[in-house]
Amino acid sequence: MPASASPEIDRLIGLLAKLPGMGPRSARRAALALLKRREQLMQPLAEALSAAAEKVKPCSTCGALDTRDPCAICADPTRDRTLICVVEEVGALWAMERGGAYRGLYHVLGGLLSALDGMGPDQLRIGELTARARQGEAREAILALPATVDGQTTAHYLAERLAPSGVQVTSLARGVPVGGELDWLDDGTIAQALRARRPA
Amino acid sequence: MPASASPEIDRLIGLLAKLPGMGPRSARRAALALLKRREQLMQPLAEALSAAAEKVKPCSTCGALDTRDPCAICADPTRDRTLICVVEEVGALWAMERGGAYRGLYHVLGGLLSALDGMGPDQLRIGELTARARQGEAREAILALPATVDGQTTAHYLAERLAPSGVQVTSLARGVPVGGELDWLDDGTIAQALRARRPA
Repeated sequence: MPASASPEIDRLIGLLAKLPGMGPRSARRAALALLKRREQLMQPLAEALSAAAEKVKPCSTCGALDTRDPCAICADPTRDRTLICVVEEVGALWAMERGGAYRGLYHVLGGLLSALDGMGPDQLRIGELTARARQGEAREAILALPATVDGQTTAHYLAERLAPSGVQVTSLARGVPVGGELDWLDDGTIAQALRARRPA
Repeated sequence: MPASASPEIDRLIGLLAKLPGMGPRSARRAALALLKRREQLMQPLAEALSAAAEKVKPCSTCGALDTRDPCAICADPTRDRTLICVVEEVGALWAMERGGAYRGLYHVLGGLLSALDGMGPDQLRIGELTARARQGEAREAILALPATVDGQTTAHYLAERLAPSGVQVTSLARGVPVGGELDWLDDGTIAQALRARRPA
């Protein structure tokens, strides 16, 4: 059964329903809201999507998403280049940045080691990280990984891989709740965990 | 505090957060999901939004949203032109169509009479409805309005306005919804279902 009488609207609803947290019903509501506010919301959203899809790329150094390469963070001369904060995904990087407590660089792994999901070291940006640790100005790698089994497995693996480079490996302090994803944490908790980081 | 380091992504997140049911957090998750699936989701969604914003218009007869005018329903020769189902919004029309039980025409009011929200008869498509009732082939106007104070106020007003046209005015039956447990129904629904009881 189509959601509306028009194939153009049905196509829009079908695509909106694929967004995380959306279902067929909320997608219909979103489509109606968009059709009611064409100039203020629908057309600008179409343009923002198109612009981001075309221009936003992963930074070749750290893996952050930006229109520039190197990204704004890697290119920022006021950032502390002796610190590399290692995160699972770009969402975690954004969460760290919202906390506002960190002024170093980042490295986005693109996932976690996981036997269950078949994620091995070669599928993650781990070689790039060890290269940065060996060649750059980095003195400390702060592992900001989730306090889950996969997160901790990945942290142990990274600590071993980074050991030969002489870079100190630390991780975010307790304060990250067990099973908690960085992206869902409040900014204050992230800041506290950052300040209380300890050797891995 | 920006959500990301890139103004293009921040703009996208800001617009996504304006969709109903979305907040800043779910908008960030949606933006990340879109950036991960550019070809499959992000670019098609941009195009679908753009196409719908440009082409979809309210039908000048019934007020349904379609790329054609008259809309697919008004133009459908197999529809029963003696029936007009009056709904508050396009979302209600879509719900009726999904049900698949109705094969007549529609009339979208664009809202309900409401003293509180300052909605008077002139802000709704009521003149268009009485004109259709006078001039067309309509024999019955089925009021499919919500069972709220505003919905019932609007229904009474429409019944009065439509009386001179000679069109029969009916409304959807009130009663126990299919699959509804009596224990979870409000007292008003039970009382109405009881008053409208029929031979089993």
